[in-house]
Amino acid sequence: MDITDLWSELATPGGRIVYLIMDGLGGLPSDETARSALDTASTPNLDALARDSACGLLEIVGPGITPGSGPGHLSLFGYEPLRWRIGRGVLSALGIDFPLQDGDLAARVNFATLNDAGEVSDRRAGRISTDLNRKLCEKLRQGIELDFDGELFIETESEHRAVLVLRGDDLSDDLPDTDPQATGVPPVEMRPGSDAAEKSAALVADFLRQAGDLLADESPANGLLLRGFQTHQAIPGLRERFGLYGLCLADYPMYRGLSRLLGMDVAPAPGDVEGLFDAFEQRFGDAHDFYFLHVKGTDSAGEDGDLARKVSVIEVVDRHLPRLLEARPDVLVVTGDHATPATMAAHSWHPVPVLIHGRNARRGNAYRFDENACLNGSLSLRPGVHLLGLALAHAGRLKKFGA
Amino acid sequence: MDITDLWSELATPGGRIVYLIMDGLGGLPSDETARSALDTASTPNLDALARDSACGLLEIVGPGITPGSGPGHLSLFGYEPLRWRIGRGVLSALGIDFPLQDGDLAARVNFATLNDAGEVSDRRAGRISTDLNRKLCEKLRQGIELDFDGELFIETESEHRAVLVLRGDDLSDDLPDTDPQATGVPPVEMRPGSDAAEKSAALVADFLRQAGDLLADESPANGLLLRGFQTHQAIPGLRERFGLYGLCLADYPMYRGLSRLLGMDVAPAPGDVEGLFDAFEQRFGDAHDFYFLHVKGTDSAGEDGDLARKVSVIEVVDRHLPRLLEARPDVLVVTGDHATPATMAAHSWHPVPVLIHGRNARRGNAYRFDENACLNGSLSLRPGVHLLGLALAHAGRLKKFGA
Repeated sequence: MDITDLWSELATPGGRIVYLIMDGLGGLPSDETARSALDTASTPNLDALARDSACGLLEIVGPGITPGSGPGHLSLFGYEPLRWRIGRGVLSALGIDFPLQDGDLAARVNFATLNDAGEVSDRRAGRISTDLNRKLCEKLRQGIELDFDGELFIETESEHRAVLVLRGDDLSDDLPDTDPQATGVPPVEMRPGSDAAEKSAALVADFLRQAGDLLADESPANGLLLRGFQTHQAIPGLRERFGLYGLCLADYPMYRGLSRLLGMDVAPAPGDVEGLFDAFEQRFGDAHDFYFLHVKGTDSAGEDGDLARKVSVIEVVDRHLPRLLEARPDVLVVTGDHATPATMAAHSWHPVPVLIHGRNARRGNAYRFDENACLNGSLSLRPGVHLLGLALAHAGRLKKFGA
Repeated sequence: MDITDLWSELATPGGRIVYLIMDGLGGLPSDETARSALDTASTPNLDALARDSACGLLEIVGPGITPGSGPGHLSLFGYEPLRWRIGRGVLSALGIDFPLQDGDLAARVNFATLNDAGEVSDRRAGRISTDLNRKLCEKLRQGIELDFDGELFIETESEHRAVLVLRGDDLSDDLPDTDPQATGVPPVEMRPGSDAAEKSAALVADFLRQAGDLLADESPANGLLLRGFQTHQAIPGLRERFGLYGLCLADYPMYRGLSRLLGMDVAPAPGDVEGLFDAFEQRFGDAHDFYFLHVKGTDSAGEDGDLARKVSVIEVVDRHLPRLLEARPDVLVVTGDHATPATMAAHSWHPVPVLIHGRNARRGNAYRFDENACLNGSLSLRPGVHLLGLALAHAGRLKKFGA
């Protein structure tokens, strides 16, 4: 057992918790100004809140580990990410509302462009339209026949992204990514990682062969790349583990899928930051007691290396922040699921600022909400998976341990 | 699995890492000046580097644990020292380039002085010369015959130190140290710690009996003390675990032996601090991507309770530091393997200052390189075993975890 299991054991009904997660929050100083996005942004509301909150930094998965958004969020939700490993395929399938069953083998699909030599020339096929994606998936569904006692699903996600699901007995996910994560090289050959995966590897290889024939004359999407194979296993949700009735307010499929996997209800996609706060105001006070609000723009801007846009997304969130406070949740948490420094244009391992606001939060010496100021907060630097337990405690949702 | 296994899983080629390890770095304020050695030393180069680095403190093995140099270094190299326990005997054998084989039983030997009552009067036999040590080892090799189907080795290390190796089937290291770590008491009797160790205990007891007879007329080295019994098992090295091609630049046998155990190449002993930096300049840029530079003088001075000498070793290192920076390693780490406060004249459990310098290191609020200033750094206080993962991340040598 780890500390999260002790929270399970001690969980009791209590106050309402709001998680405001700014994806990819936290970064590094720019070379020009020596300031990070958080440090650059004008955030009077976040700064005032930081002064009245327990602040710190979260090392989301572990030292040196750059989290993908899946493990990053699992950690924030109280699931030790080395123990609960969820593949991209399963997350993608959940994100399009695909009703996965236990044992289903799922993989993330990219439509891609291959050159005459069979090498990958564009891993995303020029980000084809979602409409074309739908047509190609339909073509594959119609044309492919696999010789096995089971079912094949190929479903559009968006743009070049799709999901492959095989349903049958004894499927194994000990399979390589065929996506080489590079151009100028051919897709990786599908070979089983173990004896138990031989049947699955043969099925997927046959699928790829038939798909290759069907797509041969398409342009630019004349190939498929697969990654993140995983057989689905239901995992105990937030309600089962911690007694939390969660509601997810998020636009992007993966966050919605992950929330569903953890047993949260998922509200209609709010559309943008303003819509997110609108939706929160409409829903807060309903039967839920855990509200997960997800802002994607901070991460997208960071990934694009656009510090100015990241600053502006943070400032928009800051302007709406009083609307969360007016709802008077018992606990309000603001943090991110990993850092995405604009200077790196990528996710990174750096710890992420966090604040916990609530009646019994111990204020420290963080006078702003940024990477350096939060070093002086009362929460210090700590693993990301600590967050949910602290939120539960601040909401009066954890009984005393022992007598 | 622990976090170090996740680094293994995510390891990928990347930049060059330099570890500058000042043995026993970190200490306590002296009673007279209220300053530690680091705080007393004039270190303009280390201080400037600290301001441009991620700083913090490493609790090398765990709270309250005073590390020996073996576990201390293992931790810095990414080997959780509670999981990878390597005995003194194996380290000593590796340090003299003894070609250990799997299953060999090794122990560290001290030549010692026993009084007429058979009690230890000097655990180091007045630190006899290495020459005398060699003559005595030869005498033991010639004179001792053990009744078993295997081989006995007794090899000089230096001064009073030697190494005993038994090679044969089914040897067990569940044996006590015969070194009582005190004078005025007899050596500890050799008894098996378990049934499986009966054969080994009998062999060692027979060895000690014959050695006692052969040394009886010697002075001052008329006895032997054994400690750190361990059967050797090869362990996966830095290359296998983390894809690092290491080069060790160290004078002392134990550090060289440990490096060899971890699969590093070991350069000729550089001789002194200046030679260490000379050797680094000659070697950096060769096929290695992990350079381990070891400075022993800080620890020796601390062990001798000589704060002024420790200060002066640190200042010499500081003067040479720009030579490391000029080589432009992707990541430069400066730290120690444990504290050796001159006020204690011994290793201690206190956390050790650390800095990580590199392109994506997040600067915090440490404005000097000493025990107190590093409390304000962005790395905070953390376990020593975190270090290698952070170094790998800063060198771009860890892939993203999950999607």
